[in-house]
Amino acid sequence: MATYSEFLAALVEALGADRVQVGDAVPPRHHTDWSGTAPVPPLALVRPRSTEEVSALLLLCHAHRVPVVPQGGLTGLAGAAVPCAGGVALSLERMNAIEAVDARSATLTVQAGATVQAVQEAALAVGLQFGVDFGARGSAQVGGAVSTNAGGNGVLQYGMVREQVLGLEVVLADGTVLPMLRPMLKNNTGYDLKQCFIGAEGTLGVVTRALLRLRPLPRAKATALVALPDFDAALALLARLQGRFPGALSAFELMWRDFIEASLRWQTLREPFEAPHPFAALIDVGGQDEAGLRDALEEVLGEAMEAGEAVDAAIAQSEAQARALWKIREATAELPANMHPPINFDVSLPQADIGRFAQECRAALSARWPGHLSVFFGHIGDGNLHLSTDASTVNGEEGAVEELVYAQVAAFGGSVSAEHGIGLHKKPYLGASRTPAELAAMRAIKQALDPLHLMNPGKVFDL
Amino acid sequence: MATYSEFLAALVEALGADRVQVGDAVPPRHHTDWSGTAPVPPLALVRPRSTEEVSALLLLCHAHRVPVVPQGGLTGLAGAAVPCAGGVALSLERMNAIEAVDARSATLTVQAGATVQAVQEAALAVGLQFGVDFGARGSAQVGGAVSTNAGGNGVLQYGMVREQVLGLEVVLADGTVLPMLRPMLKNNTGYDLKQCFIGAEGTLGVVTRALLRLRPLPRAKATALVALPDFDAALALLARLQGRFPGALSAFELMWRDFIEASLRWQTLREPFEAPHPFAALIDVGGQDEAGLRDALEEVLGEAMEAGEAVDAAIAQSEAQARALWKIREATAELPANMHPPINFDVSLPQADIGRFAQECRAALSARWPGHLSVFFGHIGDGNLHLSTDASTVNGEEGAVEELVYAQVAAFGGSVSAEHGIGLHKKPYLGASRTPAELAAMRAIKQALDPLHLMNPGKVFDL
Repeated sequence: MATYSEFLAALVEALGADRVQVGDAVPPRHHTDWSGTAPVPPLALVRPRSTEEVSALLLLCHAHRVPVVPQGGLTGLAGAAVPCAGGVALSLERMNAIEAVDARSATLTVQAGATVQAVQEAALAVGLQFGVDFGARGSAQVGGAVSTNAGGNGVLQYGMVREQVLGLEVVLADGTVLPMLRPMLKNNTGYDLKQCFIGAEGTLGVVTRALLRLRPLPRAKATALVALPDFDAALALLARLQGRFPGALSAFELMWRDFIEASLRWQTLREPFEAPHPFAALIDVGGQDEAGLRDALEEVLGEAMEAGEAVDAAIAQSEAQARALWKIREATAELPANMHPPINFDVSLPQADIGRFAQECRAALSARWPGHLSVFFGHIGDGNLHLSTDASTVNGEEGAVEELVYAQVAAFGGSVSAEHGIGLHKKPYLGASRTPAELAAMRAIKQALDPLHLMNPGKVFDL
Repeated sequence: MATYSEFLAALVEALGADRVQVGDAVPPRHHTDWSGTAPVPPLALVRPRSTEEVSALLLLCHAHRVPVVPQGGLTGLAGAAVPCAGGVALSLERMNAIEAVDARSATLTVQAGATVQAVQEAALAVGLQFGVDFGARGSAQVGGAVSTNAGGNGVLQYGMVREQVLGLEVVLADGTVLPMLRPMLKNNTGYDLKQCFIGAEGTLGVVTRALLRLRPLPRAKATALVALPDFDAALALLARLQGRFPGALSAFELMWRDFIEASLRWQTLREPFEAPHPFAALIDVGGQDEAGLRDALEEVLGEAMEAGEAVDAAIAQSEAQARALWKIREATAELPANMHPPINFDVSLPQADIGRFAQECRAALSARWPGHLSVFFGHIGDGNLHLSTDASTVNGEEGAVEELVYAQVAAFGGSVSAEHGIGLHKKPYLGASRTPAELAAMRAIKQALDPLHLMNPGKVFDL
């Protein structure tokens, strides 16, 4: 094995000095991500401009046995993009071109370093939409969204990022380029290799390019906030809406009372209904014309109120009113400023059990930490529950809170990560959602595609 | 290695004599599938009744180094279920229980040997639908549909089988059971292993159980047959319909004139329009009420006619009329009886290029075999083109026709198999759609999950 200095000299020679920053020259923002993991300075930060440069870099790292940590927008919440000491941090930020938008086939080809928002805007420019949206859209990059199989607000209608990916270009640890970019919606020719890299958090290879599916843009949208008496009513209302607007319900965000109260307090908003209610659901539905859609929504919400599934409802009559209703849900952006700090969970459960899970979780937290502040909210339509607890209200016992919550998740047969991934942060709890046989099969695939264990080592699972 | 007779004795002892048929006792229908591949009698046919029995069988085969070919409904068109000499044919037909249907979370748990039709019926019984449908529904089994990532008529709206699979139970070559059945729509906990087995045609393991996603059942449906002047008009009409009925367009089946003529002749049907037209598209759209939906469809087809995208249209006014329109498309069932025999293609292409591909393909066929009978049709919305040529009109030169067509597919950057898979039949052409690096990565995954190469050997690719 060559020394670090020989490796770095070879790196600069292969890629050019302007692509490589070493040691103290690496900007500190590349030392960690939004997960709050302790910063780790990498040996070097490399920012290539093409797939060929990524391939040359990986070939060199492979020859010198230097590990590589791919970095996108660094907005991940599980720590997958935190560098490893002695390794290269590979930032895709200079590969940010939207290379092609094809409105007729509703596809878009993009380099991995483009932001999610750039993809959204390119789709809107041709009268279509990208099916994925989440709060970090302005920073999160396509490669990271693919590598974490990101979720967000559009999952109910269009699925996670996996369902938007028609093709990928990936560079393997030894520099091999896999050009899985054929622009076909259907391609049953051998194993669908690209699936392996979606959600692999950079442990199997580096995503350099994606061919994404775009979706039709509804001409009109209606938004409503609905007050609900209990969790089962929420599920009944959801089923009613799915039946009435098949394929057109784009959001059904459920908020427990604790979340609504915190949101109103943090943002100094007014109570949306005359009285407080145990739950509220924020609903978006797409259609052909504003007025007709609002009428249809009013009709179905009226039926829901008669059936006892809803107790009050506000239908936005303008875009401004819709934004005001969404503001209540967007208190998630206020979590870091108002909890000290927040302990965040992103779990998924069999849909029917979510209400009982939340109840039992809250009871268990209250039994141990009376007076704790915890807020429950989630994309109930796809079984995803978020929970944030203010660490300062549980004596800073973050580890104990995690153990309690993940034990409940395991007892309910749920998943410890619905959409954020495993990274470093959830590694200790992966066994709560996967059997030893599954973990062994994952390790076998890792071994097959990265036999020297150079790709993002120590993330997802240990070898 | 033990002898065959020792292996067979151990097999009968482990599973019981009623699970095992040997040599001449194996019913001939298990010697091949619908692909027309020459029959191969297996060493034995085993029909287990549980996952535990499948696991015991594979453990035993592993110990004795006996290869295993999984068999579902034997309706595959690429030969993936054809036994190998000296190997076990593993039929899932006795594992056909629908184990659970959960209308609230819109999921269904089923054993791999249940038919696609049984799943469809179980979904309808709770007011939902299964998003997958194709002609062989009454025989094709869930395990086969998963293992070939089947397509069919519902792909435009709901995607291929992959997008319906929330969980799988799979038995690996060494008998290990992977219970990837957690009923969650979102589960980002490590690699999404189940994806490896979807479309792997039984070469990585045996699918024994699936957790499937169900879809809302539209209250109303409208069907229309539309005459089109050219291919680009078809794409424009498709985009118009997608924009007008986002998420609700469930079929857009394009038929070239040669297909329509053959269909009318074979089934003694009347010309659907006053004059023949170069193309016709069969359209299904879902909605809330029959009358409103027909009105909306009439309006948008009127717009399309004004824009020159359509030249004539018939909207079904009853279920019987809808069936009559579909009858023209269902001439595919008549192919085997009317072509001698049919040489079938299932390719996919960049959507915008399909018209030109068909034109050039037909011209090349006509140049070499003047007077050949070929019919073109497909699920254009997802880029999938089918083509069948009557072998008796090309001097029985099946191999030459395949070479010609697959060379065109490669030249257009298309896929040699959109939905039928590779099996035995398309193995020689896999390289037209996959690079050597991709094939090497597939082999690495095969090696990782089935190091002794016992699962369906010789299918998809050679090792």
